[in-house]
Amino acid sequence: MSGRKETDLTEVTHLGSQNTTYQFDYDPSVLETFDNHHPKRDYFVKFNCPEFTTLCPKTGQPDFATVYISYIPDIKMVESKSLKLYLFSFRNHGDFHEDAMNIILNDLVDLMDPRYIEVWGKFTPRGGISIDPYVNYGKPGTKYEEMAEYRLMNHDMNPETVDNR
Amino acid sequence: MSGRKETDLTEVTHLGSQNTTYQFDYDPSVLETFDNHHPKRDYFVKFNCPEFTTLCPKTGQPDFATVYISYIPDIKMVESKSLKLYLFSFRNHGDFHEDAMNIILNDLVDLMDPRYIEVWGKFTPRGGISIDPYVNYGKPGTKYEEMAEYRLMNHDMNPETVDNR
Amino acid sequence: MSGRKETDLTEVTHLGSQNTTYQFDYDPSVLETFDNHHPKRDYFVKFNCPEFTTLCPKTGQPDFATVYISYIPDIKMVESKSLKLYLFSFRNHGDFHEDAMNIILNDLVDLMDPRYIEVWGKFTPRGGISIDPYVNYGKPGTKYEEMAEYRLMNHDMNPETVDNR
Amino acid sequence: MSGRKETDLTEVTHLGSQNTTYQFDYDPSVLETFDNHHPKRDYFVKFNCPEFTTLCPKTGQPDFATVYISYIPDIKMVESKSLKLYLFSFRNHGDFHEDAMNIILNDLVDLMDPRYIEVWGKFTPRGGISIDPYVNYGKPGTKYEEMAEYRLMNHDMNPETVDNR
Amino acid sequence: MSGRKETDLTEVTHLGSQNTTYQFDYDPSVLETFDNHHPKRDYFVKFNCPEFTTLCPKTGQPDFATVYISYIPDIKMVESKSLKLYLFSFRNHGDFHEDAMNIILNDLVDLMDPRYIEVWGKFTPRGGISIDPYVNYGKPGTKYEEMAEYRLMNHDMNPETVDNR
Amino acid sequence: MSGRKETDLTEVTHLGSQNTTYQFDYDPSVLETFDNHHPKRDYFVKFNCPEFTTLCPKTGQPDFATVYISYIPDIKMVESKSLKLYLFSFRNHGDFHEDAMNIILNDLVDLMDPRYIEVWGKFTPRGGISIDPYVNYGKPGTKYEEMAEYRLMNHDMNPETVDNR
Amino acid sequence: MSGRKETDLTEVTHLGSQNTTYQFDYDPSVLETFDNHHPKRDYFVKFNCPEFTTLCPKTGQPDFATVYISYIPDIKMVESKSLKLYLFSFRNHGDFHEDAMNIILNDLVDLMDPRYIEVWGKFTPRGGISIDPYVNYGKPGTKYEEMAEYRLMNHDMNPETVDNR
Amino acid sequence: MSGRKETDLTEVTHLGSQNTTYQFDYDPSVLETFDNHHPKRDYFVKFNCPEFTTLCPKTGQPDFATVYISYIPDIKMVESKSLKLYLFSFRNHGDFHEDAMNIILNDLVDLMDPRYIEVWGKFTPRGGISIDPYVNYGKPGTKYEEMAEYRLMNHDMNPETVDNR
Amino acid sequence: MSGRKETDLTEVTHLGSQNTTYQFDYDPSVLETFDNHHPKRDYFVKFNCPEFTTLCPKTGQPDFATVYISYIPDIKMVESKSLKLYLFSFRNHGDFHEDAMNIILNDLVDLMDPRYIEVWGKFTPRGGISIDPYVNYGKPGTKYEEMAEYRLMNHDMNPETVDNR
Amino acid sequence: MSGRKETDLTEVTHLGSQNTTYQFDYDPSVLETFDNHHPKRDYFVKFNCPEFTTLCPKTGQPDFATVYISYIPDIKMVESKSLKLYLFSFRNHGDFHEDAMNIILNDLVDLMDPRYIEVWGKFTPRGGISIDPYVNYGKPGTKYEEMAEYRLMNHDMNPETVDNR
Ligand SMILES: [Ca+2]
Ligand SMILES: [Ca+2]
Ligand SMILES: [Ca+2]
Ligand SMILES: [Ca+2]
Ligand SMILES: [Ca+2]
Ligand SMILES: [Ca+2]
Ligand SMILES: [Ca+2]
Ligand SMILES: [Ca+2]
Ligand SMILES: [Ca+2]
Ligand SMILES: [Ca+2]
Ligand SMILES: [Ca+2]
Ligand SMILES: [Ca+2]
Ligand SMILES: [Ca+2]
Ligand SMILES: [Ca+2]
Ligand SMILES: [Ca+2]
Ligand SMILES: [Ca+2]
Repeated sequence: MSGRKETDLTEVTHLGSQNTTYQFDYDPSVLETFDNHHPKRDYFVKFNCPEFTTLCPKTGQPDFATVYISYIPDIKMVESKSLKLYLFSFRNHGDFHEDAMNIILNDLVDLMDPRYIEVWGKFTPRGGISIDPYVNYGKPGTKYEEMAEYRLMNHDMNPETVDNR
Repeated sequence: MSGRKETDLTEVTHLGSQNTTYQFDYDPSVLETFDNHHPKRDYFVKFNCPEFTTLCPKTGQPDFATVYISYIPDIKMVESKSLKLYLFSFRNHGDFHEDAMNIILNDLVDLMDPRYIEVWGKFTPRGGISIDPYVNYGKPGTKYEEMAEYRLMNHDMNPETVDNR
Repeated sequence: MSGRKETDLTEVTHLGSQNTTYQFDYDPSVLETFDNHHPKRDYFVKFNCPEFTTLCPKTGQPDFATVYISYIPDIKMVESKSLKLYLFSFRNHGDFHEDAMNIILNDLVDLMDPRYIEVWGKFTPRGGISIDPYVNYGKPGTKYEEMAEYRLMNHDMNPETVDNR
Repeated sequence: MSGRKETDLTEVTHLGSQNTTYQFDYDPSVLETFDNHHPKRDYFVKFNCPEFTTLCPKTGQPDFATVYISYIPDIKMVESKSLKLYLFSFRNHGDFHEDAMNIILNDLVDLMDPRYIEVWGKFTPRGGISIDPYVNYGKPGTKYEEMAEYRLMNHDMNPETVDNR
Repeated sequence: MSGRKETDLTEVTHLGSQNTTYQFDYDPSVLETFDNHHPKRDYFVKFNCPEFTTLCPKTGQPDFATVYISYIPDIKMVESKSLKLYLFSFRNHGDFHEDAMNIILNDLVDLMDPRYIEVWGKFTPRGGISIDPYVNYGKPGTKYEEMAEYRLMNHDMNPETVDNR
Repeated sequence: MSGRKETDLTEVTHLGSQNTTYQFDYDPSVLETFDNHHPKRDYFVKFNCPEFTTLCPKTGQPDFATVYISYIPDIKMVESKSLKLYLFSFRNHGDFHEDAMNIILNDLVDLMDPRYIEVWGKFTPRGGISIDPYVNYGKPGTKYEEMAEYRLMNHDMNPETVDNR
Repeated sequence: MSGRKETDLTEVTHLGSQNTTYQFDYDPSVLETFDNHHPKRDYFVKFNCPEFTTLCPKTGQPDFATVYISYIPDIKMVESKSLKLYLFSFRNHGDFHEDAMNIILNDLVDLMDPRYIEVWGKFTPRGGISIDPYVNYGKPGTKYEEMAEYRLMNHDMNPETVDNR
Repeated sequence: MSGRKETDLTEVTHLGSQNTTYQFDYDPSVLETFDNHHPKRDYFVKFNCPEFTTLCPKTGQPDFATVYISYIPDIKMVESKSLKLYLFSFRNHGDFHEDAMNIILNDLVDLMDPRYIEVWGKFTPRGGISIDPYVNYGKPGTKYEEMAEYRLMNHDMNPETVDNR
Repeated sequence: MSGRKETDLTEVTHLGSQNTTYQFDYDPSVLETFDNHHPKRDYFVKFNCPEFTTLCPKTGQPDFATVYISYIPDIKMVESKSLKLYLFSFRNHGDFHEDAMNIILNDLVDLMDPRYIEVWGKFTPRGGISIDPYVNYGKPGTKYEEMAEYRLMNHDMNPETVDNR
Repeated sequence: MSGRKETDLTEVTHLGSQNTTYQFDYDPSVLETFDNHHPKRDYFVKFNCPEFTTLCPKTGQPDFATVYISYIPDIKMVESKSLKLYLFSFRNHGDFHEDAMNIILNDLVDLMDPRYIEVWGKFTPRGGISIDPYVNYGKPGTKYEEMAEYRLMNHDMNPETVDNR
């Protein structure tokens, strides 16, 4: 075993950088990748992101969510600091909850071309009701496409209790 | 990516409206829809609704429930503010718990014609016993009909602990 | 939609009655039913009953359990007030935990002839050990019989933590 | 020891009554009392009321709260079924959260003339913020007045975590 | 140190007895005591009793509570098996929640003449409201009387969340 | 009792307004008040605000906190919709956690001149450490000043467990 | 329905016995059975045993576990008081965690010849690591053997969070 | 700052020893101390001991408790490995719960002569009731004696919920 | 039954050793095994390891995780004390979270040649996001390879709530 | 209001720095301060530090704790990034739990000369027992010295439940 070397991380520009700029406008170009060192193995990487915030497209009021992103990498893996900057770029942007989760999934598919990926947003309530969209994807024509269908069919069978407090 | 435009939301009249009228009588006509922007993808949208209240049809006493609604959209999606008004219209209405959940499911099927939908009500106890009806539906003749059967067969395998406190 | 009418509820004599008599001896005859208004649909109804108490057949000491009852109705549905009176009738009665859950299931099958039903009792400990019987049933010769076998095979895969406090 | 006799309970008309009428308009006259059998002792009685709902005076939208009421009785004690009917009478009524809790306290003081009483409402959020008013009272000129001041000064020193889910 | 000897326990007849008889009628005479071996020290003994059940004096319906009993012994201490039998004797007995807690306190004061004692009952809800009486006592004319007043004044400052589930 | 009338609420311009504008720059002038209807009574009003976000003054990265605000009103009370807009105005603003809580307290004192007020921010961690400032105030020269000192001395005696997950 | 009769329980010698002897040395012979009254039905019986303790075979230090035992009975069922005595006999005995769970399973298979059985031990940590063995068994050549394989394959898919506190 | 040196720890013989012998008979002589390096400061040290087990003096059945020990050291401090061995020596010993906690306190006072100490045992239930003794001590004639009285008076004001599961 | 004998444990050198040396550099050679006594049976052994810490390869800052390791043994089983030392050897080592979990799995496969194994790391957040890699393995060409695929497909269907506090 | 300016933060060198060096040897000199902008007000700042690890001075094994630090600033405030580096410097250092908490308190008093400060460490268990030292300090000769004594006397009155899992 040897840890990642500097030469492995030349693509990674945000991590540990002193000069991080936070982009307020939606900007998928901040996303960066590094190489998967274990491409022969199927395995999951999950990001727990409880600090997601965006704006309502109609009223302009802020919305808050915890976003959970899980994927099976192929060749490329998303670097977490860049993911943070990407999610930050929704801060002053407006969209429906359902659309935002689809867009995050689309952008990460474009970036990494993963074998499998899923995105689950759990928003805080407005008017007493909260909305939780769940989106997933498996590479078309592979077993991961079936995996996506299987996981959707089995999604959220043991839902959490929500009481708005 | 671009957020929803005003022109996308002309059907949505309740959201952000100053003149919302709360209808006390059961009224499915308040429900409104908007278009699904991701119709090629199967994905879940879930509403957590802990502020549902209705009346007992025989004694008139108030009943309270948390209602969980999950669906896979087809062309139309229910707008959440209108869903809130719809659920409000049960406030002074009387029906058995089991019937109320079936009616909500029926109305949402009529409104959206979704691929799949499920409705789970968890009521507070009366006489030391609480009742939790769970109803689901998949579009007949499609794989979603099998999905409904599969999810019913696997329903509530890890039930919550209930101690009435 | 219209709520249940009085004429629908003539079989229901306990609900809202001022003259409820609590029967201390085991008595399945107190159970009452009403008609299922949605017989074309398979759906679940669940009763959470945390106030179940009976006596040990050998020592006479009281036992306490939370009983969870879930079923898919066919033509008849059990009325919850009568279920409460039925469960009350175990109060001064003695039987082993395992037998009590089987008897409740048998009585409800006799009463409703449901498509599927399951009964799970979770007792408080005696001598540091607690006992949780789980019993289920699917109408013989139907797909619900397979459902019962399937749910038994998948029963309690994520058990709760019990520490006797 | 002997239990309450029928003759002790002639003032109590709602409890066990078949003919309970639920009054939709604010109506403190439904409140009933019974006599305190232990007037020489200071002790607390607490009501946990998680099923309180009212309307916003400006927008008409429904509000939901759990209301906790604790008091030290003097001569009269409030009967719990009548308390339920009283709280129900806020159902279609509009007032600010802060006012509603003050009004409940005032009505119970008028009814029972208790030694001490406190009312704490915990509402569900609107626009991401929830409001929890806490009101108390001690009989003027007695040690209970000091008790009220003391309990206010020590109120909510260990606040619950609220995350709107 | 040496453990309790048999000769210390001649007053204790229920503990370990094969012939325990469960008395269904209220009967404080089943209570037994043993001697306090540490009478020079003030210390607390607490009983957690989550299996308390009684009947409503007006409707006959069963009520359930968890009863918490804490006391500072003087010369006599209550034996726990006899306490269990005593609490069992409320099983088919009817009284108001508030009265039941006062009676338990009175009986234990009569039995043990403790320096200080408190009894807190937390009942399951009826009609959506639950009742929690709290009663305490300090030996009159001693510092324990002030202790009782102090603990009442500080009672339940951090109340539990109750949602009836 | 009568609910707040429209004439009582002429100062309240944000609540229920269709034209709410969310101000991104720190702006205490959005705060609005209404009159306290119970000025003879000392009572607490608490706001739970889990959706507070600001920026780090040095790195520009987003910070998130739950802010708890409790106060005893005098003549004026802060309206909750305007409080929401005020807290929103920290969204694109940078300050240290300790400063932000002091500023919120100062602005609310300026606005309402309350008898007593406290502000507690609980931030999410950065680098494995989270910061929770707690600030309070009592009107100088009154008993509320002593109350502030007393509550500070007793602050957070039962701290929550924090494990960064 | 009729409760278990004395004549059904002649094999049961420990339950309710005054002369229980606790055996400190490993002794499977204390296990006792009674007949299954519902042998035509497959159902689960589960024992929650949070009071299991044994010794480390190498260091002699005490180990503690919660043991969960679930089985589908065939003709014989294990009596819970005898199970308690059996588990007690590990008290001063030494073995590896993995071996102890296998031995308990083997002994219960020998005793009852059940259709299916599983044993899950959850130990407290030593050196910051805790060990949880899970063992199961289905009667060879029956569908229960496949059931054992299926449940092993699906074992612990939703693991508890462990933080050693 | 410098860490404890070997020469500071010559009294400590159990910690890190390969030859630890576990003594099954009650034996306070295994307790060892080390010197307090901060004797000018009053501070608390707390031991959480969830693995305490003893035997009932009358029936011989095992009892289990979590024992919490908190003290303010004077000159000597108890070494934790020796405390473990001491608590282990109750394993095959019999005494009443109330006595065991008093004995532990007495032994630790004899060992360390601390300024203040308290011992709280929380036992698992027998017959549906659990017992929690709490004992404390302050050095006679010092302010710590008043501290003991104060902490006893304020003991367990926010009791945990116990439901025997 | 007989416990592990000394002769069974000659390979186990770390357990109970007084001379344990903690190796700060990554060192899989510290891992030790003992023989599986139940090789005819498929069963799970799980290690909960909440005290894992490593360093970031780019910034050098410490990272913390809870690591869960579950496996089905074949001939060899990993000894837990040696596992502790192995995990300790990551303490001053740097690697990406995703790589560390793959390396642990690879080393344990090399050591034990197990039938099945999985490793799940749950890290604390950096910059508001936490990363949880999950890796598994089944012996190639056996049913355990399919088991690995099945468990990956069903991984984390009921994710925990993460809020960074 | 204006946020902290760059000129206010010239003393703060670690925050946002790309060149952070993690010091493995105990080094209080890494601690940095900034000025308190609200010195006329007494208020609390709390750091939650769940990622503290050190080594046992005798065995060399790693220890883990969550450290909670609360203080009332006077002129200087500790900067959180430097606090993180300081706590990191215990990583490969050995000391008793009780000593480590005293040292942290001493170093922060030397650094900031705060009005009041307290440090509470909660360690993970070794041998089934965990240790939680709590240390505090008030500036001698001021009211904060009395505050320290008062908070010590009231320390941990509502202890958490610890079960080592
Ligand atoms: Ca909640
Ligand atoms: Ca919550
Ligand atoms: Ca519950
Ligand atoms: Ca509860
Ligand atoms: Ca537990
Ligand atoms: Ca939460
Ligand atoms: Ca609850
Ligand atoms: Ca946690
Ligand atoms: Ca835990
Ligand atoms: Ca814990
Ligand atoms: Ca509990
Ligand atoms: Ca519990
Ligand atoms: Ca528990
Ligand atoms: Ca959390
Ligand atoms: Ca947490
Ligand atoms: Ca725990």
